[in-house]
Amino acid sequence: MGATGREGVESPGGRICYNLHSLVKGPNKAAVKPPKARQSLDQVSELTTNRLSVYLRCLNLLEGAGVKTISSQSLADQFHLNAAQIRKDLAYFGEFGVRGVGYYVRDLKRHLRQILGLDRKLRVAIVGAGNLGLALADYPGFRQEGFEISALFDNLSAKVGQQSRSGVPIHDIHDLKKLARRDGISIAVIAVPAASAQRVVDLVIAAGIKAVLNFSPGTLQVPADVKLKSVDLTVSLESLSFYLARGETDEG
Amino acid sequence: MGATGREGVESPGGRICYNLHSLVKGPNKAAVKPPKARQSLDQVSELTTNRLSVYLRCLNLLEGAGVKTISSQSLADQFHLNAAQIRKDLAYFGEFGVRGVGYYVRDLKRHLRQILGLDRKLRVAIVGAGNLGLALADYPGFRQEGFEISALFDNLSAKVGQQSRSGVPIHDIHDLKKLARRDGISIAVIAVPAASAQRVVDLVIAAGIKAVLNFSPGTLQVPADVKLKSVDLTVSLESLSFYLARGETDEG
Repeated sequence: MGATGREGVESPGGRICYNLHSLVKGPNKAAVKPPKARQSLDQVSELTTNRLSVYLRCLNLLEGAGVKTISSQSLADQFHLNAAQIRKDLAYFGEFGVRGVGYYVRDLKRHLRQILGLDRKLRVAIVGAGNLGLALADYPGFRQEGFEISALFDNLSAKVGQQSRSGVPIHDIHDLKKLARRDGISIAVIAVPAASAQRVVDLVIAAGIKAVLNFSPGTLQVPADVKLKSVDLTVSLESLSFYLARGETDEG
Repeated sequence: MGATGREGVESPGGRICYNLHSLVKGPNKAAVKPPKARQSLDQVSELTTNRLSVYLRCLNLLEGAGVKTISSQSLADQFHLNAAQIRKDLAYFGEFGVRGVGYYVRDLKRHLRQILGLDRKLRVAIVGAGNLGLALADYPGFRQEGFEISALFDNLSAKVGQQSRSGVPIHDIHDLKKLARRDGISIAVIAVPAASAQRVVDLVIAAGIKAVLNFSPGTLQVPADVKLKSVDLTVSLESLSFYLARGETDEG
């Protein structure tokens, strides 16, 4: 457990402080020698990759609607994005625009999928077959972009051998290492109670998995070569609270 | 259904383009006459309020550990944040720091809770008592910051009358309006399949609820006076994919 991989700190009272470092700064493990990039990929923040994900969804939509080319301005207008930001984000990775044309939708989509590493199938394991794990196993968005939810894992023998509604099998957590290697699982999703999360992450790391998406509201420590991303759903709710508070101020 | 409240566009092929406008720009409904703010709250982006949520968690932790005062630099160092960013974010709302002391933890925490509208109990209804709805009803983070999950709603009579593991009752969706008014529910969480989401949001709006957190991977339209925030879990997974792709480039 390297200190560098430490993601948050748990207080004596058991309250959690999420370190949303990954949300605020860039991924600290980005490659330093990008093949075509005009700027070091080290400088590509996670907010940028999040926006690339959004652009990709927009392009999927445009392609579905039969649109062949689009300018950054038109892309921005249609999807309430920022044209200068789109150009800046894409410029990190190369010169994709064509003067007088804009972007070829199909080409840009292919480039974005390549940049995001979506040009191959990534196999995902979900650890924890409770309500959250089962919901994530059947979450339609994951499949849409080529992720394959290969397996659920749990330690309850009553669950092992069952499957999610969409057919993802539930395996014994003790088989994680064996199945992760056999099936080439590269991402683990943690959907267990906070008290078990570190133990589960240790098993995930021992299985050789280097990317972890954590939904547990606990503090997790991972070695420096493992990428940990935590999803804190409370932040979304608090931004609605902010909006409601302002709205009331406005009316009052 | 005002066009201004439109959040995304669904393609003919049924693929969804999330408009993450709310993630990129600020809330378009922020009050224009803030009581103490040094700058218009109109300029406060949702990324800022997200960071305020993070600072609040850090302060909870520090208070739990008995820390009375902290400088922005020390706060940044301990939680891998950015000191200049902290000062800038807080400066929107007033002068909270004390020269030579930094911030009083308890005071700043109180101010942040006030800014985020967490100084009163906000009641939340979750629509959809499937795996996701049940998981969200028992999500510990929501309660920690004073949100009260008052009720789950579903249209399956077999579920109505049951409750979540933590005791949130499941009501008939037809009672949403009645119970929302009786219990003062101000936020609705949408956890139903994409095909039912718009119908459910229409019921939510008819019930007078003005803030919606949407987990459904569908496109939703709301009037301009309703704040809609969508959580797209795929974006998190794609940022891990980006990391894995870069890691492989680096080694290869």
